[in-house]
Amino acid sequence: MRQSQTLIPTLKETPADAEIKSHQLLVRAGFIRQTASGVYSFLPMGNKVLKNVEKIVREEMERAGAAEMLMPALQLSDLWKETGRWEKMGPELMRLHDRHDREFALGATHEEVVTSIVRDEVKSYKKLPLSVFQIQTKFRDEQRPRFGLLRGREFVMKDAYTFHTNEESLDEAYKKMYQAYQNIFTRCGLNFRAVIADSGAMGGKDTHEFMVLSDIGEDTIAFSDTSDFAANIEMAPVNVTYAKSDEAEAALAKVDTPGYKTMMEVSEFLGQPLDKGIKSLLFKVDERFVLVLSRGDHEINDIKLKNALDASSVELATEAEVQQLFHAEVGSIGPINVPDDIEIVADYAVEAITNGYAGANEDNTHYKNVNPDRDFKISSYQDLRFIMEGDPSPDGQGIIKFAKGIEVGHIFKLGKFYAEKLGAKYLNEQGKQETMIMGCYGIGVSRTLAAIVEQYHDENGIKWPQEITPYQVHLIAVNPKNEEQSKLAEEIYKELQKQNISVLFDDRKERPGVKFADSDLIGLPIRITVGKRAGEGYVEYKVRDNGEQDELHVSELVNKINTHQ
Amino acid sequence: MRQSQTLIPTLKETPADAEIKSHQLLVRAGFIRQTASGVYSFLPMGNKVLKNVEKIVREEMERAGAAEMLMPALQLSDLWKETGRWEKMGPELMRLHDRHDREFALGATHEEVVTSIVRDEVKSYKKLPLSVFQIQTKFRDEQRPRFGLLRGREFVMKDAYTFHTNEESLDEAYKKMYQAYQNIFTRCGLNFRAVIADSGAMGGKDTHEFMVLSDIGEDTIAFSDTSDFAANIEMAPVNVTYAKSDEAEAALAKVDTPGYKTMMEVSEFLGQPLDKGIKSLLFKVDERFVLVLSRGDHEINDIKLKNALDASSVELATEAEVQQLFHAEVGSIGPINVPDDIEIVADYAVEAITNGYAGANEDNTHYKNVNPDRDFKISSYQDLRFIMEGDPSPDGQGIIKFAKGIEVGHIFKLGKFYAEKLGAKYLNEQGKQETMIMGCYGIGVSRTLAAIVEQYHDENGIKWPQEITPYQVHLIAVNPKNEEQSKLAEEIYKELQKQNISVLFDDRKERPGVKFADSDLIGLPIRITVGKRAGEGYVEYKVRDNGEQDELHVSELVNKINTHQ
Repeated sequence: MRQSQTLIPTLKETPADAEIKSHQLLVRAGFIRQTASGVYSFLPMGNKVLKNVEKIVREEMERAGAAEMLMPALQLSDLWKETGRWEKMGPELMRLHDRHDREFALGATHEEVVTSIVRDEVKSYKKLPLSVFQIQTKFRDEQRPRFGLLRGREFVMKDAYTFHTNEESLDEAYKKMYQAYQNIFTRCGLNFRAVIADSGAMGGKDTHEFMVLSDIGEDTIAFSDTSDFAANIEMAPVNVTYAKSDEAEAALAKVDTPGYKTMMEVSEFLGQPLDKGIKSLLFKVDERFVLVLSRGDHEINDIKLKNALDASSVELATEAEVQQLFHAEVGSIGPINVPDDIEIVADYAVEAITNGYAGANEDNTHYKNVNPDRDFKISSYQDLRFIMEGDPSPDGQGIIKFAKGIEVGHIFKLGKFYAEKLGAKYLNEQGKQETMIMGCYGIGVSRTLAAIVEQYHDENGIKWPQEITPYQVHLIAVNPKNEEQSKLAEEIYKELQKQNISVLFDDRKERPGVKFADSDLIGLPIRITVGKRAGEGYVEYKVRDNGEQDELHVSELVNKINTHQ
Repeated sequence: MRQSQTLIPTLKETPADAEIKSHQLLVRAGFIRQTASGVYSFLPMGNKVLKNVEKIVREEMERAGAAEMLMPALQLSDLWKETGRWEKMGPELMRLHDRHDREFALGATHEEVVTSIVRDEVKSYKKLPLSVFQIQTKFRDEQRPRFGLLRGREFVMKDAYTFHTNEESLDEAYKKMYQAYQNIFTRCGLNFRAVIADSGAMGGKDTHEFMVLSDIGEDTIAFSDTSDFAANIEMAPVNVTYAKSDEAEAALAKVDTPGYKTMMEVSEFLGQPLDKGIKSLLFKVDERFVLVLSRGDHEINDIKLKNALDASSVELATEAEVQQLFHAEVGSIGPINVPDDIEIVADYAVEAITNGYAGANEDNTHYKNVNPDRDFKISSYQDLRFIMEGDPSPDGQGIIKFAKGIEVGHIFKLGKFYAEKLGAKYLNEQGKQETMIMGCYGIGVSRTLAAIVEQYHDENGIKWPQEITPYQVHLIAVNPKNEEQSKLAEEIYKELQKQNISVLFDDRKERPGVKFADSDLIGLPIRITVGKRAGEGYVEYKVRDNGEQDELHVSELVNKINTHQ
């Protein structure tokens, strides 16, 4: 493509509203333009890279045995009401009425539509399992659209859905999808982790998020420094054996701790290490209260607590509730002499504490030489805390590190939630009706694009990885008015096209400095500059990624490009 | 693809709401399903043919030098208000509010968005001309969605836009697009015509519609039986020389025509040929009245009248207006003794009438032996009538025939309408600001698919043309439980895939009759049936288009398929 004939409106200045690198660079390099908050146009270069990501996704989905389809954006509200998501999605779901006043949602996702289609068309076990996907525009009215393509209101997504008669079949599909996702993000050149995630309230089982490691990510991942273990920090189990010290148990004693409330303050005031503290938090668990203990240097993980207590909701008790039940302020409550009807549960780490300290259920007072089981009863020890950096990895290999991640994909064993709500049933081999079991699998296609730029750039611009780059070669004629240069550049342009090497030809009448700056910004893998030595047939060959450059004779070009990795 | 692993829900019965063949067959063959009125899901086979049409469109657009981009469906109302189309589009434009109560349109077309992007990014003549396109989902809330994919409310469209500094540049782009459209519809296998169309009120100039010939079409095309001339009947000029007879002019005479009002009635009553009648119609042209004459067997064409009189609106006068001005009823008015301030214009054919008949401006009375110019004054003769079958073609080659057509494409010289409304200006070589000149070019992609099926089917199902077919070969194992058949079918399946021949493998446990019926319905070009002679390595090879069949040894298959046209 001749640069003079397409639309690549590069900018010198960073747009004021662009907080992160991918947003800044995709706008500055002329790949995207915002047309409304969270709504973008993909200009020709942006469209090319988007289509390249789509191509990878499509190929890997097909390899995983999924058949592509295309469902509509306009979805009748009836379906969403059947699953309860018409209410649940709240203002994020965009809604409209047609001329006959029928209510529609703009597809934020397609579980409802695909399940209704399969319900209507698949009646027998013979037609299962079934695996379908689409690459399609989605609409979500985010409260705060930001970060360019990372969190938009209209975006391109790949969503896949599988339907099964049994769990084993779902497990198999899940594994295939897991592998397909590994392939996709690897081909995109991304440094990512498949992360064990929270399956939430929808009755699902396994679920993994695919996270691209990046400081701007909004999620924290705990991963092993030696194995491929990775989990959302909320989901990472703690697999530590806490050794009890051989210190003799001393006599329980009250101490005044005037005005000292946090574990840190009390620890310093008592001159005792933080990991001898017993932190006591009162939680409201469904309709009852539970006192939850952890070591002073640990944090209770709500999701673990909820799962451990098989509860549907857990939240910290209010100050008023604490006062009413313990007649003490929040910073001074503890496990000794708690009201009879309040259960105490503790994280495993608490069991190993000898001669610790804890609140005394009197304002400004703590106990020291507290010994669990001797001084109070605990109904159960469980894994209740957040994993920390330095913990051993739960899989027994290596130690845990933290990183920030951008979620680009999500695979999920849905189970029967949607099939039950929408009545997606089939006849089994015995002629009996059963409910289908489902999986769903999403990839944020336009978001993946942004994640790629987050990982592939330097101070001068983007550095596109091989499979995503809009063109392989940026061909520049330094001075197109010079006949030798212009002639050689035109020849190279034709030859590369003939060799099926995609090339962007900067034939613009711009100063060389502008062309080079634009070229770095746009970030194609190889730059070929036709300049002073055009008459001898020599050009400059430069690799964007590592800056290596070379003078080459035109006769060597095609071979050199084809061996570039 | 194994048929057992994808979703091709064929139906024996024709869906009750499907009036036309393409709608019936695309539903019955399991290509599409309706999810709301005028809103369809493309199931895996439907998606494949859709993507094949898109591929052709994309390739030909790129060959024509257009760069692909992707604009959003969500469009701020502000832009539509700037061009006045927020009002003008009426209920066809789907509208919604976001959570912050900002008003959006769902893109029915993208003139506003693309013009605003180009306005913001292109400031100099150096960056023009520019040619961009997208393949994207559009939304139009049709009053009466019908005919399946032919008139939907959510559909896939290719829209292209070009921007220019002068008319010559627009002419050149228009020609390229015209050629690209010829290529696209030819590659789709369609019998179509590029038809001169009405450029309407938007200040445009040339415009062509690409019409697929089909009895279910809603437009009538006049085309030459020997040349490639074709025009919307509203737009076809009449290029006829009317010979005046050598009959002597007789004396004007009044005759009673009691109760005879239409030209046909008066003609029969008087025993005079229809083409001696002078039909007189009173039109309201902007703010004045004009009496318009045509030959009794001709029909006045409003658009020609409007253009001839350089009017912005023409409509037939009401009965009351006729009574008030002529003191006679509509069927009895004529050109003799008309009120002074009423101009008379006539179609060319009227000039050649000798001793004709016309209304006498008295109820139940006509004149006979009427001779134009002798008996009344005419301010001008013009081409005012509709072309008719049998007329000579306006290009001088052949005679005119009529056909019905489905509009699948439209190319249009927009001129400056949108650029002026939205302020899309550039600096010319002299540094002076000028307004851009635009063209726009649409193809109904999903509609084209329906048009293809209208032209490619028989009583048993679809017959996909070569470049559109979802798969090249339908491979059927008659009895998959038979080991020889199953083994040979599997071998052929693998071999065809290895040879890059796309194949749908019917491995279902269904009766042979069901498989054959489904196969005809789905309509892949070649069917290979593995049956009784599997043991000897012989299979049946059948061509869907012409029904030709053959027994072949498997060793001949690949060659046979590859030479199929």
